[in-house]
Amino acid sequence: MSEVQNQLIAFRELVKKIKSYEEAVGLIYWDMRTGLPKKGVESRSDVVGVLSTEMFKLSISDEMGAFLQFLSEPQHWEQVDELNRKIILECQKDYDRSRKIPTEKYQAYVVLTSNAESLWETAKSTSDYALFQPYLEKIIAANLEFIELWGYKDNKYDTLLDMYEPGMTVAKLDEVFGALRKKLVPLAASIQASKNQPETAFLRQTFSKDQQRQFSLFILNQMGYDFEAGRLDETVHPFATGLNPGDVRITTRYLEDDVVSALFGTIHEGGHALYEQNISAELIGTNLCTGTSMGIHESQSRFWENMIGRSASFWNRYYADLQKTFPGQFDDVSVEAFYKAINEVKPSLIRIEADELTYNLHIMIRYEIEKALFNETITAAELPQFWNEKYKEYLGVEPSTNEEGVLQDVHWSGGAFGYFPSYALGNMYAAQMRHTMLARMPNFEELVEQGNLLPIKEWLVEQIYQYGKSLTPAEIIQQVTGEALNPDYLVAYLEEKYQEIYKLV
Amino acid sequence: MSEVQNQLIAFRELVKKIKSYEEAVGLIYWDMRTGLPKKGVESRSDVVGVLSTEMFKLSISDEMGAFLQFLSEPQHWEQVDELNRKIILECQKDYDRSRKIPTEKYQAYVVLTSNAESLWETAKSTSDYALFQPYLEKIIAANLEFIELWGYKDNKYDTLLDMYEPGMTVAKLDEVFGALRKKLVPLAASIQASKNQPETAFLRQTFSKDQQRQFSLFILNQMGYDFEAGRLDETVHPFATGLNPGDVRITTRYLEDDVVSALFGTIHEGGHALYEQNISAELIGTNLCTGTSMGIHESQSRFWENMIGRSASFWNRYYADLQKTFPGQFDDVSVEAFYKAINEVKPSLIRIEADELTYNLHIMIRYEIEKALFNETITAAELPQFWNEKYKEYLGVEPSTNEEGVLQDVHWSGGAFGYFPSYALGNMYAAQMRHTMLARMPNFEELVEQGNLLPIKEWLVEQIYQYGKSLTPAEIIQQVTGEALNPDYLVAYLEEKYQEIYKLV
Repeated sequence: MSEVQNQLIAFRELVKKIKSYEEAVGLIYWDMRTGLPKKGVESRSDVVGVLSTEMFKLSISDEMGAFLQFLSEPQHWEQVDELNRKIILECQKDYDRSRKIPTEKYQAYVVLTSNAESLWETAKSTSDYALFQPYLEKIIAANLEFIELWGYKDNKYDTLLDMYEPGMTVAKLDEVFGALRKKLVPLAASIQASKNQPETAFLRQTFSKDQQRQFSLFILNQMGYDFEAGRLDETVHPFATGLNPGDVRITTRYLEDDVVSALFGTIHEGGHALYEQNISAELIGTNLCTGTSMGIHESQSRFWENMIGRSASFWNRYYADLQKTFPGQFDDVSVEAFYKAINEVKPSLIRIEADELTYNLHIMIRYEIEKALFNETITAAELPQFWNEKYKEYLGVEPSTNEEGVLQDVHWSGGAFGYFPSYALGNMYAAQMRHTMLARMPNFEELVEQGNLLPIKEWLVEQIYQYGKSLTPAEIIQQVTGEALNPDYLVAYLEEKYQEIYKLV
Repeated sequence: MSEVQNQLIAFRELVKKIKSYEEAVGLIYWDMRTGLPKKGVESRSDVVGVLSTEMFKLSISDEMGAFLQFLSEPQHWEQVDELNRKIILECQKDYDRSRKIPTEKYQAYVVLTSNAESLWETAKSTSDYALFQPYLEKIIAANLEFIELWGYKDNKYDTLLDMYEPGMTVAKLDEVFGALRKKLVPLAASIQASKNQPETAFLRQTFSKDQQRQFSLFILNQMGYDFEAGRLDETVHPFATGLNPGDVRITTRYLEDDVVSALFGTIHEGGHALYEQNISAELIGTNLCTGTSMGIHESQSRFWENMIGRSASFWNRYYADLQKTFPGQFDDVSVEAFYKAINEVKPSLIRIEADELTYNLHIMIRYEIEKALFNETITAAELPQFWNEKYKEYLGVEPSTNEEGVLQDVHWSGGAFGYFPSYALGNMYAAQMRHTMLARMPNFEELVEQGNLLPIKEWLVEQIYQYGKSLTPAEIIQQVTGEALNPDYLVAYLEEKYQEIYKLV
C-alpha cells in the first residue's frame, strides 16, 4: 500500500475516534435532558468536561497537524479521493479555527459564557438589562478578538455566520432578507387588517398526554421516521439529536391545554431526525456525518412542520384521525376551521411563540442587531432601544419590558452570534425546495392528501439527506433547485397560503 | 506545597479521569440495555471500545506507573494520608494485574470470550455441550496462564476469587461452604418431606404492569431509595448500576402472570442501589467509590430482598397495600398464606429461579466445579457428568439436558470464574449482619411491622455503605459484627424461618 493510503487509514482512525467522543458526549447530553437524576448532575458535568477536553485535544493534536500537513502536500493530495479530501478539509477548518485561539483565551471565554448564561436567567426574570450588559460587552469583545485572529474578508460578521452556515455572508443576507422584509411586513399588516380572523378557542381544551403521545407517534410513523433508529421522549424544550444515523432521538413537550404544540414540535424535530437518520452509510464515523448547516437542517424541520404539517392537504387526510384520537372534542369543528386556526398569524413579542410568517421578522431583527454589533455601529448599551424600535418597525408591536424584549433569547449569553439567521434561511431553503418538488412531483398534494408521505421523504433522502455534510449548503440548494438561494419562493408560498386563509384578494 | 502533595494532586486528577471514563461507559451500557434503538448498536459498540481502551491505557500508563513508584517510596509514603494510601494501593493492584498480561495475550482473550459468549447462546439453546467445550477449554487454559503470570500463594483458584472478593480463599470457602452444606442439605430434604406445603396458585393471576410498577415504586420509597439520585426502568434482566452516588439506576422486569417477580427483583436491585447511593462524598471521583466486593454487595441486595422483603413482619405491614393495589385479587388470601407462598422451597435445576434456601446449594456446586477445574482435578470434558452428580447429591434433582444443566449460566463463557461464590457469601454476610442488627436494634421487627424502614437503612449506611471500597470485605464484616465470616448465622436464620413455615419441629 502507498504511504498516502497508510496515512489515510491512520487519519480516518483518528477522525473516527473524535467522532466516538462526540457520540458519547451527545448521549450524555440527551440523558441530562431526559432523565438524569438531579443529584447526578455535578459528577456527570465533570465527565462531559473530561470527554470534551479530550475530543478537543485530539482535534488540534500534533498528530492531527501532521496528518493534515502530509496529506495536503500536492503530490499526496492528488492521490486522495474526493470523499477523503472533504474530510480532510473539514478537519483543517476545525484545526485552524481552534489553533488560532490561544488556550488561555479560549478557556477564559468558556468560563465567561458559562457565567453569563446563568446570569442571563436572573437578568431575564428580573427584566434587568443593566445586569447583563457588562457580560454581553465582554462576550462581544472576545468574539471581535477571535475574528481578528481567525481573519475575515469583507465583513467581520461573516466569520461568525460561517460557523453555522458555511459560506453565508452579510452581502447575501442583506439581499435576501431585504427582499423578504419588503414583502412580509405589508403582508403581515394586511393580515392584521383582515376581517376574516380565524376562531381558535377549540385548540385550547384539555387533551391527555397519553392521547397526544399516541397521535405524535402515529404521525412520526407516517413521515417515515424509523423507530428502530430512534425514540421519542418528553422534555421541557423539544430537541432532536443524531448520535449516529442508527440512533437519532427526538423529544417533545405535551401541553395539556394545547392540542397542537406537542404535535408540531414532534413533526419539527422529526424533520431534523429524518435528515440525520438518512445520511449515507459511507459517511458514518466521519466529520461529514451530520447535517451540512444549521440553515439546511432547519429547512427540513420547517418543511415538515409547516409545509407538510400545517398544510390543508395534510389535514384533509389526518383530521379524522385527530378527531378519533380525542373523541368528542372536535365534533363541531370543520377541517377548514381547524386548518385556519393552526395557521393564525399574529404579530407578537416572543420569537418562539411566533407563527410561520412573522417568525422571519423576529429573525431579521436579531440579524440587524448582530450585524450592527460586529460592525461596531451600535454598542451593547444601545441594544434595548434598537430592539424596541425594530419591533415597532417590523412587527408593529413594542415590548414593555426587557424580559419580553432584548433579554428573551438565551443565544447571546452563550456567545452564539451568527446562529439566528439559520432559522429564516431554513424557511427560504424549504420554500425553494418545495417549489422544485412540486415541479418534479406533480402529484405532491395528492400524495399528502392520501397520507402517502414516503415518496416525499424518499425524494428528500435522495436530494439532500444522504449527502450529510459532504456538500455545502450552497451546493445543496443549487443542486436541488438549479439556482442559488432565492427569497421569492418563500414570499410566493406565504402570499398564496395566507391570501387564501385570510381572503386577502 | 511539598512535592508529595503536588504529586498527590496530579495523581488524584488521573484517578478521577479514569473514573470519568468509567462513568461514561456505565451510562452507555445502561442506555444499551434500557432503550438504545437497534440500529444504533453497532456504532455505540465502537464508542464503548474507544472509551474502554482509553480507560485501560490510562490505568496502565507510564504516567500512572511513575505516580505509583514515587508515592510508594518510603520517605514519600509516610507523608501520604490514609485515604490516599488506599487509593494508591487499589491503583497498584489494577496496574500490576494489567501490566503482567502481555497485550497480545489479553486482546486474544477478549476476542475469545466475546466469541464464546455468542457461541454459548447457541450451545445452550441446542443443549450442545460439545460445541461449547473447546471454547471453555481455551478460556480455562488462558486463565491458568494468567494465574501463573499474576502469581498465587496457596491455591490457583484463590487468585480468581480475589478478583471479586478481595482476600477470599479456597481454605476459607471450603470451611464455610462445608459447614453450610452439612446443615442445608438435610434442611431442604425435610422441607421436601413436610406435609405442610404452601398454596401458591394465587401468585399466578394476571397483574397489570402499571399496577406492579406503582407498587415497586412505593416499596422503593419505603426503603429509602432516593429518587433524586436514581430512577427505575424496565429491562429483560433486572440490574442496578451506580454511575456515581447521585445517579444509581435500577431496572426490573414485570411479568404479567406473576405478582412478586418484579417486586422482589426491584427490592433486590434496590438493595444494591442503597449501597451505592450512600457511599461517602469524600470517595467520589476515586476508585474506592463503589461497593467493596461482590459478596458484600450481594449481602445488601439479599438482605433487603429476603430478610426484609420476604419476612412476615414486612407483609404484616404491606400486605394491605398490595391488596389495595390489585383490587379483588387477594380478597381470599390471608397474609399468612401469602407469606408462606412467597417463601416456598423447592429444589430445582435452574439457579436463577431458586428459592432463598436452595440457592446456596446451586452456588456450592459451581464452586466445587471451578475449584476442581483450576486445581486441574477435573477436565472440561468431565464437566457435565460432574455437574449432574452434584445436583443429585446436593439437591436431589438431575438435569435431563445440558441446557438445564451445565450450560445454564452465561458466566463461564465470559471467563467470570470466581464470581459465583459471591452470591452465597452475600447470604452469609447478610445473615451475620442481621444477627448483629437484631442485637443492636431490639425493636427491629417492630420497625419493619410499622413500615419504619429508614432506621434500618441508616444503620446500614453508617455500618457499611458509607465506606465504599475503603474497607475490605473482611474488615467490614469484622467491624460490623465483631467476628469473621461465620456461616452459622445463615444456618440459624434459615432453620428458624423454615421450621416455622413448614412446621418442621
